[in-house]
Parts: sequence; structure tokens; C-alpha cells
Amino acid sequence: MRATVFRGVDTFGIEDVEQPRAGAGEAVVRVTLTTICGTDLHIVRGEYPVKPGLVIGHELVGVIEELGPGVTGYRPGQRVLVGAITPCGQCHACLSGHLSQCGHGEGYEALGGWRLGNTLNGAQAEYVRIPFAQANLAPIPDGLTDEQVVLLADIASTGFSGAESGGVRLGDTVVVFAQGPIGLCASIGARLMGAARVIGVDGDDARLAMARKLGVDVVLDYRKQDVVAEVQRLTGGGADVAIEALGTQQTFESALRCLRPAGTLSSLGVYSGKLQLPYDAFAAGLGDHRVVTTLCPGGKERMRRLMDLVQARRVDLTPLLTHRFALKDIREAYALFGQRKDGVLKVAIRP
Amino acid sequence: MRATVFRGVDTFGIEDVEQPRAGAGEAVVRVTLTTICGTDLHIVRGEYPVKPGLVIGHELVGVIEELGPGVTGYRPGQRVLVGAITPCGQCHACLSGHLSQCGHGEGYEALGGWRLGNTLNGAQAEYVRIPFAQANLAPIPDGLTDEQVVLLADIASTGFSGAESGGVRLGDTVVVFAQGPIGLCASIGARLMGAARVIGVDGDDARLAMARKLGVDVVLDYRKQDVVAEVQRLTGGGADVAIEALGTQQTFESALRCLRPAGTLSSLGVYSGKLQLPYDAFAAGLGDHRVVTTLCPGGKERMRRLMDLVQARRVDLTPLLTHRFALKDIREAYALFGQRKDGVLKVAIRP
Amino acid sequence: MRATVFRGVDTFGIEDVEQPRAGAGEAVVRVTLTTICGTDLHIVRGEYPVKPGLVIGHELVGVIEELGPGVTGYRPGQRVLVGAITPCGQCHACLSGHLSQCGHGEGYEALGGWRLGNTLNGAQAEYVRIPFAQANLAPIPDGLTDEQVVLLADIASTGFSGAESGGVRLGDTVVVFAQGPIGLCASIGARLMGAARVIGVDGDDARLAMARKLGVDVVLDYRKQDVVAEVQRLTGGGADVAIEALGTQQTFESALRCLRPAGTLSSLGVYSGKLQLPYDAFAAGLGDHRVVTTLCPGGKERMRRLMDLVQARRVDLTPLLTHRFALKDIREAYALFGQRKDGVLKVAIRP
Amino acid sequence: MRATVFRGVDTFGIEDVEQPRAGAGEAVVRVTLTTICGTDLHIVRGEYPVKPGLVIGHELVGVIEELGPGVTGYRPGQRVLVGAITPCGQCHACLSGHLSQCGHGEGYEALGGWRLGNTLNGAQAEYVRIPFAQANLAPIPDGLTDEQVVLLADIASTGFSGAESGGVRLGDTVVVFAQGPIGLCASIGARLMGAARVIGVDGDDARLAMARKLGVDVVLDYRKQDVVAEVQRLTGGGADVAIEALGTQQTFESALRCLRPAGTLSSLGVYSGKLQLPYDAFAAGLGDHRVVTTLCPGGKERMRRLMDLVQARRVDLTPLLTHRFALKDIREAYALFGQRKDGVLKVAIRP
Repeated sequence: MRATVFRGVDTFGIEDVEQPRAGAGEAVVRVTLTTICGTDLHIVRGEYPVKPGLVIGHELVGVIEELGPGVTGYRPGQRVLVGAITPCGQCHACLSGHLSQCGHGEGYEALGGWRLGNTLNGAQAEYVRIPFAQANLAPIPDGLTDEQVVLLADIASTGFSGAESGGVRLGDTVVVFAQGPIGLCASIGARLMGAARVIGVDGDDARLAMARKLGVDVVLDYRKQDVVAEVQRLTGGGADVAIEALGTQQTFESALRCLRPAGTLSSLGVYSGKLQLPYDAFAAGLGDHRVVTTLCPGGKERMRRLMDLVQARRVDLTPLLTHRFALKDIREAYALFGQRKDGVLKVAIRP
Repeated sequence: MRATVFRGVDTFGIEDVEQPRAGAGEAVVRVTLTTICGTDLHIVRGEYPVKPGLVIGHELVGVIEELGPGVTGYRPGQRVLVGAITPCGQCHACLSGHLSQCGHGEGYEALGGWRLGNTLNGAQAEYVRIPFAQANLAPIPDGLTDEQVVLLADIASTGFSGAESGGVRLGDTVVVFAQGPIGLCASIGARLMGAARVIGVDGDDARLAMARKLGVDVVLDYRKQDVVAEVQRLTGGGADVAIEALGTQQTFESALRCLRPAGTLSSLGVYSGKLQLPYDAFAAGLGDHRVVTTLCPGGKERMRRLMDLVQARRVDLTPLLTHRFALKDIREAYALFGQRKDGVLKVAIRP
Repeated sequence: MRATVFRGVDTFGIEDVEQPRAGAGEAVVRVTLTTICGTDLHIVRGEYPVKPGLVIGHELVGVIEELGPGVTGYRPGQRVLVGAITPCGQCHACLSGHLSQCGHGEGYEALGGWRLGNTLNGAQAEYVRIPFAQANLAPIPDGLTDEQVVLLADIASTGFSGAESGGVRLGDTVVVFAQGPIGLCASIGARLMGAARVIGVDGDDARLAMARKLGVDVVLDYRKQDVVAEVQRLTGGGADVAIEALGTQQTFESALRCLRPAGTLSSLGVYSGKLQLPYDAFAAGLGDHRVVTTLCPGGKERMRRLMDLVQARRVDLTPLLTHRFALKDIREAYALFGQRKDGVLKVAIRP
Repeated sequence: MRATVFRGVDTFGIEDVEQPRAGAGEAVVRVTLTTICGTDLHIVRGEYPVKPGLVIGHELVGVIEELGPGVTGYRPGQRVLVGAITPCGQCHACLSGHLSQCGHGEGYEALGGWRLGNTLNGAQAEYVRIPFAQANLAPIPDGLTDEQVVLLADIASTGFSGAESGGVRLGDTVVVFAQGPIGLCASIGARLMGAARVIGVDGDDARLAMARKLGVDVVLDYRKQDVVAEVQRLTGGGADVAIEALGTQQTFESALRCLRPAGTLSSLGVYSGKLQLPYDAFAAGLGDHRVVTTLCPGGKERMRRLMDLVQARRVDLTPLLTHRFALKDIREAYALFGQRKDGVLKVAIRP
């Protein structure tokens, strides 16, 4: 089969590799739609290490091709959404409800539950082997297209979790730093949970426009405004929840400074190096603050809930799929996505 | 001043009474809009006892007329929304976060925090004295009309609390029994909190139509359908949350039977007599169920949040104000509201 | 091997049956200690239906005899505590954190996650096959004896969950109805979580004495006292949490009447027939009450935590093991346990 | 009356000042026991600014001398414990349950609800005026001495809140950095809430000995051990909760590095300057961590609960009162407390 294989820094592309087979508890899924994540960029740029020879990618919609021994309640030919992380459900972390800390090892190494395109061959391919299939295959309701659901497993699950971990309540004001794919989903999630007002911050015209289009109440352009001052002015004392969806010192610190006393900073970004925690913002004002970091929650129940929201027309992420490619042209897709050109947000890739 | 005075069963009406004065910690508010609650019907029908001579009514928008000693941060002339319950904020229950269990006594007796039109003179009058004013006067943002906010303090706060106490989560299916004013607000609240699907149940065509208009996804008419069977069919295993907003044995029991295992029944109705708890539905199926009863949450912070939702155009309850009356015609308003004629939901009464 | 086989009402006893083998994802455990649960009495009395020919019992400590394909991280010969319920970890209920609502089917039917001695052959035997072994085998720390841990998986897990679901907080007063094995564990759990005062109710001298011995602060004998009045008197307004651990109309209703406004009734008992919910106690007093039913939480993480508490000497349940039997004498053990004679609380049975 | 007046850096002492009078909603309490807090040291050293002429101190037990208008349910002569912070109960923060963020102003300025000895005259005096008396006077149960309760309002409330905000659950392992008065209370709180194992860290022999005496399971001396490595070794993967009770970069960072994935850092210390958040510990390991800062929770309900724990003999803090002084000798007390000599933990000062 054809698959996107990582060979080294900036060295990756389509190769012919052996089609996977399903072992006990596993499934093989024929991929019908996949996409590229910012993490994949880190991989091909050498910023996140994976083994050369690995098939990359971790977001996919597909059709069950083969079921390994012990997987029940599914049938080949069934359309499924697969989680970007693939928790086992049976280790101490999973049984504690921390699916994104799945620690099941021995051939299934994971980072925060993340295996596909990280420690196991991934989704930018014609076929992919899914570990712990019983916990991670979510049948797609009739009537939903691949494009309607492909973004749910990673960016929507992660973005929404930013709002959920932030504990958004009816009538809250929520400020979301960065309006890329995950930040936009965090904004949508905050609104879905009953925020009275969502304030989206970015410095990219296309992203600010998309934020407005997707229902963000106020957009702030950090190139033109003192965002912290403006949030304090708009709220008269600070936001209830701030969501950080970029991963820089500046956005983290600004997010903290936007909070009201006893507010919550929900951090989704992946930072590098040490963060400076501005203690005067954090607690010297004696603020009773919370800082929460969250990863992409997984498991088929999560997928089911997110698809229910799409089916009920409460969420529509298809506007984020700004460009489409065939699998064979995936290097072009990486180039466009990596350069953030032409208003690209997410790319749909069809094997 | 003119006020609606209760004299005995079915004996009530407009009288001239002395205008109230504000004592320490109190305020007097000139009422600009009030309404009638189902509880008021219970009072005039003699089903809920109050002292003859009491001014009834507990929902109001008005203008501050007088501030008693110790009330700071307000000024006469300010437009305010007043809580239907008026917690003191300083007793053991209030300090535990149970504002609707306010136990502060000695001249301020309360039932579940409810004082206006119950133990103190109420709101269907030209002026009303507000106890614990510091905790219970919420300034109305510019641009919001009396009609936009008058329903927030009681029915919206109560209805939304049905969804909040039920713990509605992203992607839940929520079934709401009865689509009267509180049930409609419970439905709106469930949707605001991110339910994928809200199912509204009633047997009144006008209310079912209003439910549809206000965004309820599925309406079920109990006169024509086996509601429990239909909810089980639609959900494939039961609703995540059921909200009971009527207060009968039948709706309580049906709500319980609609739940999935580990689901939550959030009960808003006020029942009379003993409930039969169908244990087979409740737990013999070993269901890990929760049953939660909630009262109208109060306090000015609650009012502020609800007004923020209106100002952000996330909530519009004005369609529920189906009829308008002058205070002098309040007996007509009671008659219409009590007979549930002409599609009446709530009546606006202007002194 | 020898096993306790149910044949019909009051017809059960030791038989020779085939030793089980481990399939994919399963394990076989050699039982070193087991016990009898009240549910087992229901089975042999015909009050709870199981298939004739079933090996009964669901509480056990043992040694891994065989591991099926796909079970990793264990080795034969390892001492393990096995959950009384055996959740799969991978179905929708498990992935939602409701392990005791495990719905995984097809050969693994369950009631509230309960399979051993219910739908699968159970633990009152020399060997037992454990489904979903990866999620349900908890290695026993060195230094802990079988008797120290055998009661953790069912009665401690269930009893403690009564306190956990009740949301016991520092300084609470908790009243526990019935001081049998589960009620005693609920009392211990309430105390462990920081209750200032635990009030234990029973009408059996031996159980009241045991309650005192295990740290219950106040014991009330319902034969001699008006328990509700006494709790109201002692608390000056009601208990924060009431735990019901018997399953009768009277204890349920009394528990509700003992609560303060906004209190929580945590119900562990298994009732038969319809409960009368005394609405005047429940909510007509407008009480913001919660009623929570909970089942035995399972999974190896739960077992690990409970064993940590024993190892740290924070919990010692060995006084509850009042009598000891060999497996061959299990009918005598059933007789004693069923008749509640000689101060029996739990019996230890050694194959 | 005599009172401890702050005049400038290192300039403070007993003076004769006018006895306070109670305004509306206020009370005057005759102080029978008070103590010195680390914050008081910051004040006299000029590290925390207060106005010259202020009476300092914020921890007290006393007898009601006078009640202002509007305070009901109390009587002069009643013994009361007064909160170290004195929330109003009626502002937006208080009504949201964030009593330690009380924002009520106009003569009652506060920092995190803290007024006594900060913006209002404080407790190291013969008499003290208490704002919002209705919310902040907790009657002392008969049989409890001043020394049994004087440490509850500040250090116990703060220390216990470290465990509460950390969400300690049955069977958790909790590591507490620093075993001074607040750290010791955090350790006690963690144990009270059901931790299986509490690990206390300090570098002072007397404090480590006191930790052992008060029930800390494992004590680690950072002078002799690599604390992070040892906690990781003892727990086999990290503590569930780490509580920081000192306020230094090193303890904050070590606390974070001791956590298991998805663990919680509960921070009580007051830091100066910017914290370095070691992102590799915090989240680059993709840890789903929470960092929570908490202040001293207040309000008379909190005091009541803490006194109930003392009355039930679940908590005894009298061993922390290592030294006793008369008010007139308060400078000696400050000297001893400031130099941490003679194993001093807290000093009891009797006017």
C-alpha cells in the first residue's frame, strides 16, 4: 500500500509499504480521509523525534478492513472515526479516567495516549492498524460525510477540552489566545458550553475573519491592540476563563493577566523550554487561580458525543477544511500547511 | 401606593397601602415591571399559606428609590433586576454556597431563600422593600429593556439550574418533561450548556410549538406517544439527563424511566404528597442514578450572568411574555394565567 | 476442581467441575481466599436468578495460574486481588468513567459490571476465570495477607463509595443507616474522608459494638430511640450526608428525614418494589437535596488504592472476618451467615 | 486599650489607642487569645506595606463586647472564633463562592478578603472591630479552650484548603513541601481527607520531628536526600497531589517534578518575583497537570466545621503552640518567632 513515510529531517514522502494485519484486540482500517496536524510538521522538521521508517499521521476516517481476535460488536465494511489518541481503557491511568495518560506499554508505547504516527505506523496511508480497537473505533452515523467528522478526533476534541477543563459556566466571559484550528475549536467549545461572550485573539487577518464567521463575539488583533488591557476593559475585572492555544511565553503570560481573581487558565499549547510564570499575575494578587493543562481526550465515547453534536447541527467544522489534496500529493499539502499560505487552516487528504 | 394584597382564598386585589421604607441593609425599589408566577396562583387559591394582608409577587424589574444605611455601591435612580429569592449571603447556608437555603431569620423568615410575596411584602405593587439589598440588586446593563430581563430572576434562573444541576455535558441528550415557562427555560439551558439534542415533552399544542420555536430539537406529545419508549428508541439506551419541570408522579416516574444507566434526574417540580419512586427504574437495574432537586438560585451575581447572556443575544425570553396588563387589571391577568387560555405563558404587568 | 455450584433454590454445594482455561484477554486465578456476600444468599434463596450449574461467589484473593493471549505485565504465580465487578474498560460506559455500568456483551453479560458468580462462573471454587484480566487483576503488595485484602474488592469498595458519592467534606456529620459489613465500611469511609462525626444506626447489639470498635462516633439503636429526632437534635438541623446501607423503605425514608437542607442521601441498599419517597422530606421543604445510588466501583486502580490504605494502616477490616471455614464446609458457612448468628459479619473461606 | 501598633519598618510595639466601636453590621470583640503569622513578620520588616498607625494581627479568639445595628443571632459575652479573612458574603466574588476574593470596598478594602491587620485595625490588641460580623463570628462550642481553636481560622483553614484544592482522594499519595505551621496543617488535612500516605519535606529537625508526631507517614530531609527522586521511587511514578507551603522557586519546581501524570500541584506559598515553570515537568511530558493556588477560606461556616473537627478529636493543633507570651511582651514574641529559634512554631499571646 502507499503511505507517508518519515525518513529524516525534511525527508519524507509516499512509499510502498506492507499492508498491516490486525493482531489480538486490533483492527485494520482503510483510510478514506486524513489530514495533517501541527505535530506532523514538528516531526518532519525534526523537532519531535520519531523513528525513521514510520508512517506518520494520526487523524483519520475510514472503513473497517479487518478485525483481530477478541474485537466484538463491529463488522468489516463499517465506517468509523478513529481517535487520534488510542487509550487502552485498562491501565491505571485509563481506569482513573485519564485516557490521555494511557500507560499501557509493551509494544504499544505512547506519549499521552498518542500512538498512531508516533510509536506505531499512522494514518497518512491507505491502511492503518488500530491498537485497542474495542475502545477506539466509533461508528459514523448515517448521513455524516467524512469531511464533517475528520476534524473531530483531534482538534475538536482538544479544543473543546480547553473549554471543558476551564470549567466554562453559563454566562462566563472566555478569552481564547490564538485562533488557529485548535483555538477556533476552543472558541466554539466555550460558546457551546454557554459562555456569554467569547473573545478571540490572533494576529492573522484570515484567522480573525474565520473566528468571526464561526461565532466568536469579539476578535482582538494583538498587532493593533493591547489585548490584556482591552480584555480587562471589556470585562470590568477580568475574564472568567482564558484558554491558551498556541504555546508561547507571551500568550501564556497574557492569558494569565486577562483573568479575574479566581479565574482559570486552560492551557492547550505545547511549550518549549521553561515558562516564566508571572507570579504577580498568578498569585501575588492572591488570586486563587487555577492553571490546567489538557491533552486531546480520546476513546470512542468521546467520538460518539462529538459526532452527535455534528449530527444535531450544533457544530460544523467543514469551513476549516480550506484545501484538499490526494494522498500522492501530500508533500504539497505539507508545504502549504507549513507555510500557512492562502488562508490555509486544515487540509483534507484523500488516499 | 397601590399593591396587590392577599386577603384570603380567591380574595385579593389592588389596595392602597403604605409605601415601604428602607431599614439598615435594605432598599426600596420602584417597580417598573412585574409578572405572575405559578406559586402566586397557589397562594390565591389557598394552596400555599401566606398571611392575609400580604402584598404578593416576587419577580420584578425596577428603579432604586431609597437605600438604607450600610448599602453601598448603588445610587437612587439606578435600574435593577431583583432576585426572586433574596439570600442574605451571611448565614451558614449562604456561606456554604446554598443561597437558596438561606436561613437568616428574625424578621426575614424565608422558605428556600424566598421572602418577597411570601414572608415580606412583594413585587406586584408600585414599590417594594428589598432585604439584604447589597446581595440582591443587579444593575441592568444599558440597552436592555425591562421585558428582556424580567423573566430572568425566577423562571430562567430556575429552569437553567435544572440543566446545571443535571450536569449537562457536551454531546448529551436531555429530555425535559413539561414545556411551560420553567420547562422551556430548562430546555434552553440544556441547549446553552452544549446538549447535542434536547427532547421536550408536553401535551399542549401551543407549548409544543413554542418549544420548537425556541430551539428544542425534538418535541414529544404525551397524548399521542409513549414518551418513555420513544426516548429510549431515539437515544438507543436512554437520555443522559432528564429534567422534570411539572411536579407530578407521572412525569417524575417517566423521567426516571427515560434515563440511561448512571444518568441524572434533575427535578424542578414541586410535588404534593408522597412520590412513588419506581425502584426498578431507579436502582434495581443497578443504575448508579442521581436524583437532584434544585430551587431557584439567587443573588446578584446570578442575575448579572443571566443578563450577560441576554446582552450577548444568546438568550431571548421575550417570546414567553405573551400578554400585557396594567397593575390595576391584575385580577384579569391572574384569571388568564390561571386558566392557561389563549396560549398564555407569562404575563407582563406594568404598575 | 472443587467448586460451589448452584443447582436451584436452596440446592447448592461443592461439586467437581472442569478447571477453567484462559481465553484471549482472560486469566485463570487459583483462589486462596474467598467469602460470601449477601447477594450470594439472595441467589441460593432464589431471590436473584442465576442459571443452574453456575459456580457462585464474586470476592476473591488468589494467585495467577494462567494468562490468556494479550494480557501483559503480569506473570503466573503473582498474588492478585480481583475486582468483584470486572469492567472491560473499553465500552461506552467504562470510557465515561462508569465502570460499574460496563455494558460490554457477547459472552460477558453483566449486571452493573457484575459477572463473576452471576453470568460467569465465580469465586467459591479452586480456580476462576477472570474476564478483561488486564483491567481487573491488582497485584498484592508484599506483606499484606489474604485476610487483610479479601474484603476490599466488594464491601469496602461499595461502602467507601457510599461516602464518596455522598461527597463527604471536612467537618461533615454523616449518618449511616445499618451497620452490617457494607454499612460499617461506609462509616469507615466517611471517617476516612474527614467527617467530623459519624453516626451509626442499627438494631443489633453486636453490630453496634463493632461500629463503636471501628471508630463510629455515635451509635443509635433504632429499637430504643427515635433516630430521626436524635440526629436532628445532635446536629441542630440535620446531617450533611446520610448513607443508606440496608435497602428498606423505612431506612430510606429515615435517611432522607435526617438530612439538613441541601444534604445528600447516598443510597447503597438494594430495594425491592417501589419506594415511597416522602416528598415532604425530600423537597416540599424546598430542600435542594440529592439522592445518589452507587454500585461497587471496580477496576484494578480502585483495588490498588484500597490496598494502599491497608498497607498504610489507615484501614483494617480483618475484625469483620468473624468466622473461618474450609471450602468443603461452605454450606455451614452459608447457614451461619444466612442466620446472622454468633455475631457473624463476614466469613473467610479457604479452598 | 493596649494594642500592637505598626509605625514603620522594625518600629512597632504596644501603645494605648482608642477602643473601637461597632458600626452597622459590625461587632467589637474583646480578644482573649491571638497569635503571630508569617505575614505579620513581612509587615514589621517592611516587606508588605500597611499604613503606619495600624494595629496588626489577624488571628483571634475572643468574647463579643458590642454588636452594631443589624447584627442578629448573637449576644454580648458570647465566645467566638473570628475569621482571619472577613468576607462580606454579598459581593460578586462572595456570591460566587470565592469568599477569599471578597471585593466589597468603600471603607472595607481587602486583599483576598483580608482586612484585619491589613486595611483595618487588627487583633494583637485588647479589642478589635469586626466588619461583616454576621458572616464572620463563629460561636465556640462549650468545652473547647482558646488554645484549641485559635489556630483554626488562619493556618488550619489555609493548610487544609491546600489538601481540599488539591482534590485529595481516598488512597492518594500526597507530598507536602515545607513542614512549618501551614505545611503541617496541609499534611494533617491530606490525611484527614483519606490520603493513604503523606510525605512531608523539610530541612529543619524540629519540624520534621513535629511532622512525624502529627501523623506524617514519611518525612524527607532535603538536606540529605534528593527529594524528587525519593518521591518518584516511593510512589513508583509520582505523587497524586503535591502541596507547596513555602513559596520558593525550588519548592515549587520540585513539587511539580514529584507529580504523576495528571497530578495536581496545590500551591499555598506566597512567592516573590517570577516563577520559572519547568515546562518539561509541567506539560511537555504532556501531563494533564493542574496547578491551583488557594488562599485562606473564611466565613463562620468554615470556622464551625473546623471547630467540629476539634471537638470530635479528629484534629489537635495545640502542639503547634510552642510558646506563650503576654500581650505586653509581644516584641519578644516577634523576635522569637522571626528567628525561628527554640523549635518555635506558633506563639500564643494573651492580652
